[in-house]
Amino acid sequence: MTTANRQVLLAARPQGWVRESDFRIVESPMPTIRDGQVMVRNQWLSLDPYMRGRMSEAKSYAQPLAIGDVMIGGTAGEVIESRHADFKVGDKVVGVLGWQLFAVSDGTALRKVDDSRVPLSAYLGVLGMPGVTAWLGLTDYCQPKAGETVVVTAAAGAVGSVVGQLAKLRGCRAVGVAGGPEKCRYVVEELGFDACVDYKAGDLWRDLQAATPQGIDCLFENVGGEIFDTLLLRMNAFSRIALCGLVSEYNATEPYAMKNIRSLLANRIRLQGFIVSEQLERWPPALAELVAGVAAGKIKYRETVANGLEAAPRALLGLLKGENFGKQLVKLF
Amino acid sequence: MTTANRQVLLAARPQGWVRESDFRIVESPMPTIRDGQVMVRNQWLSLDPYMRGRMSEAKSYAQPLAIGDVMIGGTAGEVIESRHADFKVGDKVVGVLGWQLFAVSDGTALRKVDDSRVPLSAYLGVLGMPGVTAWLGLTDYCQPKAGETVVVTAAAGAVGSVVGQLAKLRGCRAVGVAGGPEKCRYVVEELGFDACVDYKAGDLWRDLQAATPQGIDCLFENVGGEIFDTLLLRMNAFSRIALCGLVSEYNATEPYAMKNIRSLLANRIRLQGFIVSEQLERWPPALAELVAGVAAGKIKYRETVANGLEAAPRALLGLLKGENFGKQLVKLF
Repeated sequence: MTTANRQVLLAARPQGWVRESDFRIVESPMPTIRDGQVMVRNQWLSLDPYMRGRMSEAKSYAQPLAIGDVMIGGTAGEVIESRHADFKVGDKVVGVLGWQLFAVSDGTALRKVDDSRVPLSAYLGVLGMPGVTAWLGLTDYCQPKAGETVVVTAAAGAVGSVVGQLAKLRGCRAVGVAGGPEKCRYVVEELGFDACVDYKAGDLWRDLQAATPQGIDCLFENVGGEIFDTLLLRMNAFSRIALCGLVSEYNATEPYAMKNIRSLLANRIRLQGFIVSEQLERWPPALAELVAGVAAGKIKYRETVANGLEAAPRALLGLLKGENFGKQLVKLF
Repeated sequence: MTTANRQVLLAARPQGWVRESDFRIVESPMPTIRDGQVMVRNQWLSLDPYMRGRMSEAKSYAQPLAIGDVMIGGTAGEVIESRHADFKVGDKVVGVLGWQLFAVSDGTALRKVDDSRVPLSAYLGVLGMPGVTAWLGLTDYCQPKAGETVVVTAAAGAVGSVVGQLAKLRGCRAVGVAGGPEKCRYVVEELGFDACVDYKAGDLWRDLQAATPQGIDCLFENVGGEIFDTLLLRMNAFSRIALCGLVSEYNATEPYAMKNIRSLLANRIRLQGFIVSEQLERWPPALAELVAGVAAGKIKYRETVANGLEAAPRALLGLLKGENFGKQLVKLF
């Protein structure tokens, strides 16, 4: 029986790239529960680009973490003690319980999931926030029609990999942008994208032109910076941009200066910035399609797993640098 | 009886700012009409920022003019000869007949207007393309609710002046951005905006903060560049941008590099680039409100008039530099 908890706290606000010294790993007393609460043993911790934003003081769509706070993070685990009518010991639950081994919850925002047919970890990726993000941005904001060209950046990541596969299911040409030949091979050969542009190969513009002979009708943008700026020059008239992330910017001390904003006007583009957690009413239809797609083998996914809570800081840095394939997880037990 | 036509042709593609030498004024034979055609004597020529784009070779939403073409432009005039069943001599008509005194038309895109209660020139401004542009961008893309803050750039111009007045009629706080104290005074005192920021006054950010204490819910953007970049930092969560023009860019050899694109994501902004001429089905409801507003004295407008076709090149340059108040016209007769 474990008698102590372990947590990762925010120790310092990063300047530029996140460093391991921005985190502090602490042992803390095992928490206890009261009536109406459950104790969860977190088996999986999700790492996501948004975490970088919460470490900064800058105003964004969410409150920043305070120094000394437990790092925020999505988790999947098991109820090991319950004084809550809706949960019993052994229930598998997904929530946002943070970077720690054990956590107490009053059940708010804790969701029971069935891991008998899909692995528990999938609820943090393809059947969780990243998968729903992909579905929402593509369905509601890109609104692609069959035959159109959909481009997604960070195509081998947890969100991008789902975007391209959903685009294929809708009859579109799916083109990824990813870093390195290995990721591009994965995106095309395993996930079934029509093409992939390796932005590290040295001629982004030429390779992008070759991959999008009909231009771009829908752009699902996760990266920002020079890649986004270049993609703007390939947008078609009346095209749509779902602006989901700007991961290339999160560690930059100076924002990238975008030169091709004129394309938004010249091509009458509709752009929507969005945060999936604000569209809760869209989760049920999203999950219905994603669960069916995964069960039928039509939507594939991959996970990159770091072992042990201590590995989380380094794994977050790797995620921000684009080192992961698919969903970046930390296995806590 | 006039026996010769006079026209302004595109003589050279401008590099940077338009120069008078980019145009050539020619005398040409009086045109003649065939069955199904009318001859129009153009009384008014409209000058608009989009013209700068057509003078360049760069791909945009419209084909560029060829060297030697008559300059494109909206016109209001009178039918002086008709072999067309729908038009008779004396009809007042609005069309896009170009920078010339006389023009032949087969009636396509020629619209008969009633100048008995409003001056003919109004159909090129508040009751024409600029007015409908203002109405469409505000109504369909900004979608302001009463109590929200609407900001419009080039606020003293033909489009901006209408945007702010419509915003007031919808119960919004209307804030203009314009160049110089005289324009700002006009916008607030004559047009009834709540505030106006003079971007030439030297502290755009401070003045903008003071004018928008509740941030910006709707931005109607005509200018681009540093002003647009600064406005992005005042946008509220779930705000909307109608991207109508980037006039500060049209004469730039290098595009302004935008630093605050992150706001589009952080504030979950919806942005729509648009061209009013592609939304023909929206003209009738737009004109219904605009005509009623002008007739009731609730929508005011001002015109800056250059005299004679020969004055048009210089007047276009002035328009692009922001020297005009309200609608820039050229009086041809």
